[in-house]
Amino acid sequence: MNRRVLLAARPIGLPKLSDFSFSAEPILDPSDGELLITAHYLSADPLQRWRMDETSGYGKTIALGEMVWGRMVGQVVRSRNRNWQEGDFAEGMLGWQEYAVSRGDTERVSYARGLTRVDPKRAPISTSLGILGMPGVTAYFALIDICDPQPGQTVVVSAAAGTVGSLAGQIAKLRGCRVVGIAGGSAKVRYLQTDLKFDAAIDYHDTANLKEALYAACPDRIHAYFDNVGGTVSDVVMSHLADHARIAVVGRVAQLGGPRDRADPQAYIISARARMQGFIVYDYAHRADEAYGEISGWLNSGKLYFDEVVHEGIESSPQALIDVLKGNGIGKHVIWISGK
Amino acid sequence: MNRRVLLAARPIGLPKLSDFSFSAEPILDPSDGELLITAHYLSADPLQRWRMDETSGYGKTIALGEMVWGRMVGQVVRSRNRNWQEGDFAEGMLGWQEYAVSRGDTERVSYARGLTRVDPKRAPISTSLGILGMPGVTAYFALIDICDPQPGQTVVVSAAAGTVGSLAGQIAKLRGCRVVGIAGGSAKVRYLQTDLKFDAAIDYHDTANLKEALYAACPDRIHAYFDNVGGTVSDVVMSHLADHARIAVVGRVAQLGGPRDRADPQAYIISARARMQGFIVYDYAHRADEAYGEISGWLNSGKLYFDEVVHEGIESSPQALIDVLKGNGIGKHVIWISGK
Repeated sequence: MNRRVLLAARPIGLPKLSDFSFSAEPILDPSDGELLITAHYLSADPLQRWRMDETSGYGKTIALGEMVWGRMVGQVVRSRNRNWQEGDFAEGMLGWQEYAVSRGDTERVSYARGLTRVDPKRAPISTSLGILGMPGVTAYFALIDICDPQPGQTVVVSAAAGTVGSLAGQIAKLRGCRVVGIAGGSAKVRYLQTDLKFDAAIDYHDTANLKEALYAACPDRIHAYFDNVGGTVSDVVMSHLADHARIAVVGRVAQLGGPRDRADPQAYIISARARMQGFIVYDYAHRADEAYGEISGWLNSGKLYFDEVVHEGIESSPQALIDVLKGNGIGKHVIWISGK
Repeated sequence: MNRRVLLAARPIGLPKLSDFSFSAEPILDPSDGELLITAHYLSADPLQRWRMDETSGYGKTIALGEMVWGRMVGQVVRSRNRNWQEGDFAEGMLGWQEYAVSRGDTERVSYARGLTRVDPKRAPISTSLGILGMPGVTAYFALIDICDPQPGQTVVVSAAAGTVGSLAGQIAKLRGCRVVGIAGGSAKVRYLQTDLKFDAAIDYHDTANLKEALYAACPDRIHAYFDNVGGTVSDVVMSHLADHARIAVVGRVAQLGGPRDRADPQAYIISARARMQGFIVYDYAHRADEAYGEISGWLNSGKLYFDEVVHEGIESSPQALIDVLKGNGIGKHVIWISGK
């Protein structure tokens, strides 16, 4: 029989065991072009949780009574597809079950469909669910593409003892960064320091003052933040950013399920894969003429409209600023002092 | 006499008139190499407010009793600097006063120092404080560099009737975008629709349900958000982002002064000019092999450490997921089903 894990109830916050149930069904025969895979390992990933919500933000919601969406690595036990032989190893989004039937497509256009061929000689096949699977791709690209770690810079990783965090931190070390991990519990802190050789590790459970500990561990402030958790931990990290810092918003474990107790822009940033960037005009002073050239061109060709609110005399300056801040009036507020 | 505006008290939230005082001092004679400028216009800018706080996040705080930091455009009335003639027009951070002495440096390395020569034939000189000054540079580069507006995309601008917002929105129109402005009051909404020809304008004061109005005005969601205000308006915009949206965090007028009533990551993003970006691994599925190649190289050369937590049997799957979400254990959680 093929045993499967089903979603029995929508979890509120953390799932409970009673949110799941099990079924046993006959093992299906592959049709022409298909193959049958027996599971060696299933994967437990934070992403699974989001698809248990009514509106997931991460693709299709798992319906009640349906099999839990999840990844599997296993071995082909029957093949009616000429690209796959019995004994081949494959990884894919095959669900939380003991046997899966697949069409065997290997074109990797999405992680939700298709199979990846796994080479058991490269590493234990279970790593195809971890550092040589989706979590590995996450750690690698979110760190390299978004955090953009530069030698000598300080990189902070939250949930640093997890699959993604521990890999991201180690890659940052390989890139010559000072790496500070945040994790919960002394065992994890020891792991980060001893096994992963992070430069510092902070236990957010035990540290009475996370802020003090983090600031002490990051004397040059934080150049890049690999954010797996959100919540209060991230609030503290954000308050200590270096100029032009990069933040990869990868996970929101701390904001898990339940009603949102606060505005959480990072949740929207992650689900839209959006980019938010701070702007201070001083950084562009040396390029001002580029803007002035374009703007005056538009102005002189009548393509641009502008308005001014003119306050008169230096005594009116404070009120002018108050009006700007309150949004009174339309256009630019200036204070006329003299001249035409 | 030279009348000046002084900071008399630190404003809490919006400044009051009593936070300011005035002084009158003799007009200084320029020393060798210096010039004396008579103000034609002073500028009222939101940025001024931040430097009135004890810790500004935008550079030097204005001390109590000191002249208010601010921009001026005026005319040279006396020059002992051979680069400047009497009658020349100049703009700079010359303070809220009627006369200023300057060294006349024109190297524009920062907006806080140096003078910009102003051509009165190009446009009225007051525009050197507005669309052809710092606000113009802000609108132009924050829109072009960060919002990256593409033809046909929807761009939302908050504080859209202000100097920066009205210019940013018009530039987005010139780039072929659908532009939606948010402003307070019916006069501003009319201005945005009639004079600036925005595609839609929303009055956040009068719109009972800002969310409904914004969603209706942005049927394709929001591809870029030029954020001048922060606060609740931004929370609503953020909830309706299109995939790969860009957000330029330019101002925080809604979060003005006073105690912070909530975590406000945008405040840190703006003061560090940081970049925050959401990451979902599906976008990188087609590049997975790049990551696997590097990671397996490090693994095989002993540079990478990894751990696994192995749960046994399909019945243990729900607990494995709960452990992942609670952060129990170190490393990747897998569920062993069969095989070696």
